[in-house]
Amino acid sequence: MKPEVRKLKAYFIDEASCRIKLDAMENPFPLPDDVKQEIMDAVKLAPLNRYPDPSAKKLKEAIADLWGIGTQRMVLGNGSDELIQAIILAFGGPILIPVPTFSLYEISATTLAQDVVTVTLQKDFSLNADKLLKKANDVRAKIIFLACPNNPTGNRFADDAVFKILDRAKAAVIIDEAYFSFSNKSFLPALKDYPNLIILRTLSKIGFAGLRIGVLTASPKVIGYLNKIRLPYNINALSQVAAEAALRRKDVLNRQVSLLISARERLYNSLTQMNGVTAYPSETNFILIRTALDASHIYEKLKDSGILVKNLNKPGALANCLRVTVGTQDENNEFVNSLKKILTAR
Amino acid sequence: MKPEVRKLKAYFIDEASCRIKLDAMENPFPLPDDVKQEIMDAVKLAPLNRYPDPSAKKLKEAIADLWGIGTQRMVLGNGSDELIQAIILAFGGPILIPVPTFSLYEISATTLAQDVVTVTLQKDFSLNADKLLKKANDVRAKIIFLACPNNPTGNRFADDAVFKILDRAKAAVIIDEAYFSFSNKSFLPALKDYPNLIILRTLSKIGFAGLRIGVLTASPKVIGYLNKIRLPYNINALSQVAAEAALRRKDVLNRQVSLLISARERLYNSLTQMNGVTAYPSETNFILIRTALDASHIYEKLKDSGILVKNLNKPGALANCLRVTVGTQDENNEFVNSLKKILTAR
Repeated sequence: MKPEVRKLKAYFIDEASCRIKLDAMENPFPLPDDVKQEIMDAVKLAPLNRYPDPSAKKLKEAIADLWGIGTQRMVLGNGSDELIQAIILAFGGPILIPVPTFSLYEISATTLAQDVVTVTLQKDFSLNADKLLKKANDVRAKIIFLACPNNPTGNRFADDAVFKILDRAKAAVIIDEAYFSFSNKSFLPALKDYPNLIILRTLSKIGFAGLRIGVLTASPKVIGYLNKIRLPYNINALSQVAAEAALRRKDVLNRQVSLLISARERLYNSLTQMNGVTAYPSETNFILIRTALDASHIYEKLKDSGILVKNLNKPGALANCLRVTVGTQDENNEFVNSLKKILTAR
Repeated sequence: MKPEVRKLKAYFIDEASCRIKLDAMENPFPLPDDVKQEIMDAVKLAPLNRYPDPSAKKLKEAIADLWGIGTQRMVLGNGSDELIQAIILAFGGPILIPVPTFSLYEISATTLAQDVVTVTLQKDFSLNADKLLKKANDVRAKIIFLACPNNPTGNRFADDAVFKILDRAKAAVIIDEAYFSFSNKSFLPALKDYPNLIILRTLSKIGFAGLRIGVLTASPKVIGYLNKIRLPYNINALSQVAAEAALRRKDVLNRQVSLLISARERLYNSLTQMNGVTAYPSETNFILIRTALDASHIYEKLKDSGILVKNLNKPGALANCLRVTVGTQDENNEFVNSLKKILTAR
């Protein structure tokens, strides 16, 4: 066993089963019956005994139609997780990330024995492009991951900061747009100008976390290499046909996203009015809050009342921070009421 | 882009669509309607909007019940492909393989920038343990992959050769039992005696290639590390529930395997009686043949008649070799008849 493997930490997944699950940025809405039926009809026809289409042609066409990404400019992954791994295998390290950010960049880099260098975001979680570029230059970073909007902070980095990095960094710049549907802003139009730009998206946040479909777009050259690195049959047959059928119903997907954006705004307003809570503005389907009292205590109390959120509390930038996924209106109301009760009980 | 990535070759998948598909070791039988219905009932209940169970608990229980592997001694992968990658990440190289063997060991090693060392099998495709051990020692191999039964040769390496390697090699020894159902022999009982033994299996050859479920068992320590290396949500929700439902029907799976073993014997007998063809004995669901005339020509002619097999013809051990997957009785008959016609037309 390689020494670095002995030191690996597993990606932490809270498997507590709770009545209300607001920890993982899942879309809380069930699909309408007609869409469910369309998915089941597609699944029924999938031959389980045959290997899946290695190029996932039809699913790519459905994604192309949804997001306007050419099928020839697309690599699919078993979730973005696999694509992050493929990118690290392609470009190597050091890998530069602003922190706090999505934990899997660092975990994947460590698994693949690559160095990780971090730059701390500003106090309001904005990105100082000059600071990041200086570090990129100092360490000769090969990859820069920018989650935009960022997880777990919820904000979108300023366009001019990101473009400055694209203009000047001598590295592959990965813009992870996992949450772009909730901000409705994208760096997709910049692809034609930056051969070093790679954009990641996912079906997980818009209702299909169970299917594990990550999407990557980049220059044709990068696409060619990443298609060799990814596993040949990486998208199973059922996820291919189910996602293809689901994506045809753009009306339903768009409606659910709109509902979540409205729900997020209502939740944000409730939280900003609460004593002892700082809520950070969000362009995602979650909200980061900082509590005046011990956040880990609040997390446990919420769990006792059947509500699971993500506890991010540790010394540093996320001290006393919790991340709450936007749920249904009822779930959000119950979360707000429970949080109020816990805060006033102290 | 790393220089080694620029040199990568993609795993070759023949996407020619043929009437009769005998190229990929797929199980040719459709599932009975009642089993299909049980799978659909399970799929219908899977919540697509939630992340899949990261530990795939219920599916592991079904596999434990099928194969007698403890759920705590199991890692699942998105196909064995992902598990092969995880093993290489855990132990590093050089990686030693007897050749010819399954091409993905070498492709994965190259993708992960690890050296590959090969030892050629004997003329009858048997394994010379002393020769392999000497090479393992010379290059200080970290991993030895033994596909057993071997693909594409079809034979199972002798027990005493494999045990000699397990006893003496200072490396992780991976026994890939992808085809064990068709030989009904396994190294599973040896696990308790060899902490360096890792066994791979798959659901792909027994009817579920579309689901992408690879299974690994090894010592608890190795299991612990590999569970950290694999992607956290690597088995999607639909494959989990579909495979779980399917594996409950051991009666059906066993019947299909028995039918394939009988069909293989009939196919083997037909091939051995054919002039200009050498058929190698098989303990798998495929048969390797060597043709007296140009195998690539025969491959093309078979394809023209709607039958896709695997063309392995290149100078060396597999010169003029084709690999034919055992299909249904009708498919095998048609293959035999077409092959006869092609051979006599010359």
